Amino acid sequence: MFEKLYSERIKKTPSSFIREILKVTQKPEIISFAGGLPNPISFPQEELKVSMNRIAEKYGAKIYQYSTTVGLDILREYIVERYKKLWNMDITIDNVIITTGSQQALDLIAKVFINENDKVMVEKPSYLGLLQAFCMYDADFIQTKLNEDGLDIEELKNTIKTHKPKLAYLIPNFQNPTGLTYSKENREAVFEVIKDEDMILIQDDPYGELRFEGDRIPYIGLNQTNKNIYLGSFSKIVTPGMRLGYAIADKEIIKMLETAKQASDLHSNIFGQYLIADYLQNNDLDKHIEKIKKLYKTQANAMILAMEEFFPKNVKFTYPKGGMFTWVTLPAEKSAIKLFEKAIAKNVAFVPGDPFYVNTQNVNTLRLNYTNADSETIKEGISRLADAMNEA
Amino acid sequence: MFEKLYSERIKKTPSSFIREILKVTQKPEIISFAGGLPNPISFPQEELKVSMNRIAEKYGAKIYQYSTTVGLDILREYIVERYKKLWNMDITIDNVIITTGSQQALDLIAKVFINENDKVMVEKPSYLGLLQAFCMYDADFIQTKLNEDGLDIEELKNTIKTHKPKLAYLIPNFQNPTGLTYSKENREAVFEVIKDEDMILIQDDPYGELRFEGDRIPYIGLNQTNKNIYLGSFSKIVTPGMRLGYAIADKEIIKMLETAKQASDLHSNIFGQYLIADYLQNNDLDKHIEKIKKLYKTQANAMILAMEEFFPKNVKFTYPKGGMFTWVTLPAEKSAIKLFEKAIAKNVAFVPGDPFYVNTQNVNTLRLNYTNADSETIKEGISRLADAMNEA
Repeated sequence: MFEKLYSERIKKTPSSFIREILKVTQKPEIISFAGGLPNPISFPQEELKVSMNRIAEKYGAKIYQYSTTVGLDILREYIVERYKKLWNMDITIDNVIITTGSQQALDLIAKVFINENDKVMVEKPSYLGLLQAFCMYDADFIQTKLNEDGLDIEELKNTIKTHKPKLAYLIPNFQNPTGLTYSKENREAVFEVIKDEDMILIQDDPYGELRFEGDRIPYIGLNQTNKNIYLGSFSKIVTPGMRLGYAIADKEIIKMLETAKQASDLHSNIFGQYLIADYLQNNDLDKHIEKIKKLYKTQANAMILAMEEFFPKNVKFTYPKGGMFTWVTLPAEKSAIKLFEKAIAKNVAFVPGDPFYVNTQNVNTLRLNYTNADSETIKEGISRLADAMNEA
Repeated sequence: MFEKLYSERIKKTPSSFIREILKVTQKPEIISFAGGLPNPISFPQEELKVSMNRIAEKYGAKIYQYSTTVGLDILREYIVERYKKLWNMDITIDNVIITTGSQQALDLIAKVFINENDKVMVEKPSYLGLLQAFCMYDADFIQTKLNEDGLDIEELKNTIKTHKPKLAYLIPNFQNPTGLTYSKENREAVFEVIKDEDMILIQDDPYGELRFEGDRIPYIGLNQTNKNIYLGSFSKIVTPGMRLGYAIADKEIIKMLETAKQASDLHSNIFGQYLIADYLQNNDLDKHIEKIKKLYKTQANAMILAMEEFFPKNVKFTYPKGGMFTWVTLPAEKSAIKLFEKAIAKNVAFVPGDPFYVNTQNVNTLRLNYTNADSETIKEGISRLADAMNEA
C-alpha cells in the first residue's frame, strides 16, 4: 500500500524464511528440530528470582532509571575478568560494550563499518541473522566454503586476494548452522592469511561455553591483533529473554559502537544488566554451565545415534562437539525444501539450508536442533525424518 | 586508528553533544537542568516488585525464553485498549509493535523508509535523538519553524511544496526540547496541508500522558488517515530502564517494522514486557500518573516563578503544560554556549540549543529540565543561571 515510500533495503529483505517455517511447525503433533531455543534448564530460575529481589533492595530506583549507553560497569567488569581468566586477554571495561543481544552487536558493527557494496566475507553456509542484519546496510557478501575442520584455506586466499573484504564474520565454535568447529591448525592457517590485511575479523561465539567434547581452542589471532571483534552472549548460558550480549574490541571501535548504539536504542535494559550481574556475582556460572552441557551432550548423542541407525547411508551429517545444531547433507540431486514438505506430512520439522546461503537456492542441506527435545522424542523424530527421506 | 575502515555515516556522526555536557555536569556541586531523567517517583517500585515475583510464579520459563519479534500479545492488547479508550482508534494488536524504547522505533522507521538523501521534515528545533537516528541513514532534514501554538503553517506549506518530504517527524505534546504544545487549530491546519501528500507522519508522544494543565488534544489527522505512525513509551510513566516503547500504525507498516526489528535485535527483552504488562493489569495507571503530574506541575511552577523573578527581562521562556522541559531564548546576539561556560563556573548546567538544530550553530536558545530537582534546588539553580546571564 505504501510501496512508493519504502526504502530499497527493506524491499529487498525477504520476510524471514525461518519464521515462516516456524509458523508451520507450531502444531503440537509436530516434532520440531527447526528452532534454536536453549533448553529451559539453562535458565537458573530460582537463582534469578533471588537476584531480582536482591537488586530491588540493593540498588532501588537505579534498576529502573535511564543508564549509560555502553552498559553497566559491574557487568562489563565480570566479562573482563572472565576473558582474562579464559584467554589471558589484556583488556579493561573500555574494551567492552553491552548490546541488546548479539544480534544488536551485528547491527551496530554494520552501522560503524559498512558502506553500500562493501565486501563482507562469511562462511558458506553462514548465520541467517548476520545475513539479515548486514543486508540492511547493502553489504556485498562473499561466501567461503566451510570444511569439517574450518574455512577452506585455498578458497580463503582467493577471496582475500580477489575481493579484499573489509569485514569477515566467522563462528569458530559449533557454528550455526553446521555445528562444525575450526581446528587449532585451521585457526592458525586462517590468521596467517588475513593478519596483514586491512580487515576487521568478527568472531561470533554464542555457543563457545557449551563445549561438551574436547578442549577449548583459542580464537583466531587471539592477543595478536587489534582488528578482532569478539561477540559473546548470555542467551545460551543464563537467559535469552533479557536480550543481553556484548562485543569485545579495541577501545576506539567500542567508542564508535557506542555512538551507533546511542542512535539505536540509547542503552540496553538496565534491570536485566543488574539482574545478570548479580546472578553472576552470587552463583557459580561454571557449575551451571556443566549442567547444560551434560544435557546437550545427551541430546546430541541421542540424535547422532538415531541418525546412524535410521538415515539412508548416502545421507551425511556433522558430529558437533558442543552447541545446539547438526547439519545434514542429502545426496547431491536432492532438495531439502522438497524433503521439508514430506517431513511435515510425517509430523517432523527442520530448517532447509537455503536461507543460510547467499544467492543459492534449492540446496541439499538442512539444519537440525537437538537442545529442545528429550532423547526419546529425538529418536522418534529422526525416525520419521528417515521415513520422509526414504520416500523422497 | 581504523579510519580507513569506518563507514561514511559514522564518520559524520558527531559524538553526542549532550553526553559531553553531562560529563561536565556530574560534579555533585552542580545543579543540573541538563538531563532528561524522569523523577524516580514515576517508578512504582513496590508494585513492580510484586509483579516480578508474580510473573516468575505465573509464567515460569517463558519470561526468560526467546520470544516473538513483534512483542508480547498481552502488552499489545493493553496498548490497543488504552488507545481505543483515549482516542477511539479502530485498531487491533496487528497495528502495534513493541520496540526497545521509542529510540528503537526511530531506527526501525529509518530502516523501513529512508533511502540516501530522502527528505525528512522535522521541527525547528527538533529532538536530538531523532536527528542522530535518521542521520545514520543519510536523511536530508528540512526544519520547519515551531511557534508557540505549533508548526508555522506558511513555512510548512513552502516546505511541502518545495521539498515534498517523504517523512515528517513531530512531537505535538510538550515538545522536546521546547516544552511547546500544538493547539487544536494548529493540528487541524497542519493536517489540511499534508493530508493529500504521499508522506508518512510520525507523531512521537513520550510525554502526552504527563499533561498537568488543560485537556488532551487529538493527534494530527487522528482516525482520518492510514499514513500516521504514533509512537509511545512506558519510559516516562512506568520505567525507562526496561527500554520499552511501541509504534502504532497501519498493519502493513507494522509488518515492515517487524522485519527490520528482527535484523536489529530479534525482539525486546521479554521479562520486561511480562513485568510491565502484569503491572498494568494489576494497578491503576491513571492514578499513578496523577502522582507524577502533580509533582511535575509543582516543579514546573517553581522553575517558572524563579525565571520570572530572576531572569533579565529580555530573556524569554516557554510555559509548558506538561512534560519535562522549558525552552529559554536569550537576546538575539547572545550565545548559549558562551553562557554555558559562565553557568558551569557558577555550578549550574543546561543544554545549549545547538544540537537541536540542523546546520545551525551558536544559537541563543537553551533547554532546561525541571523533573529531577526539588523546588528549592530549582530556585537556587535558576538564580545562579540568572547571575550568569547578567554577567554575559
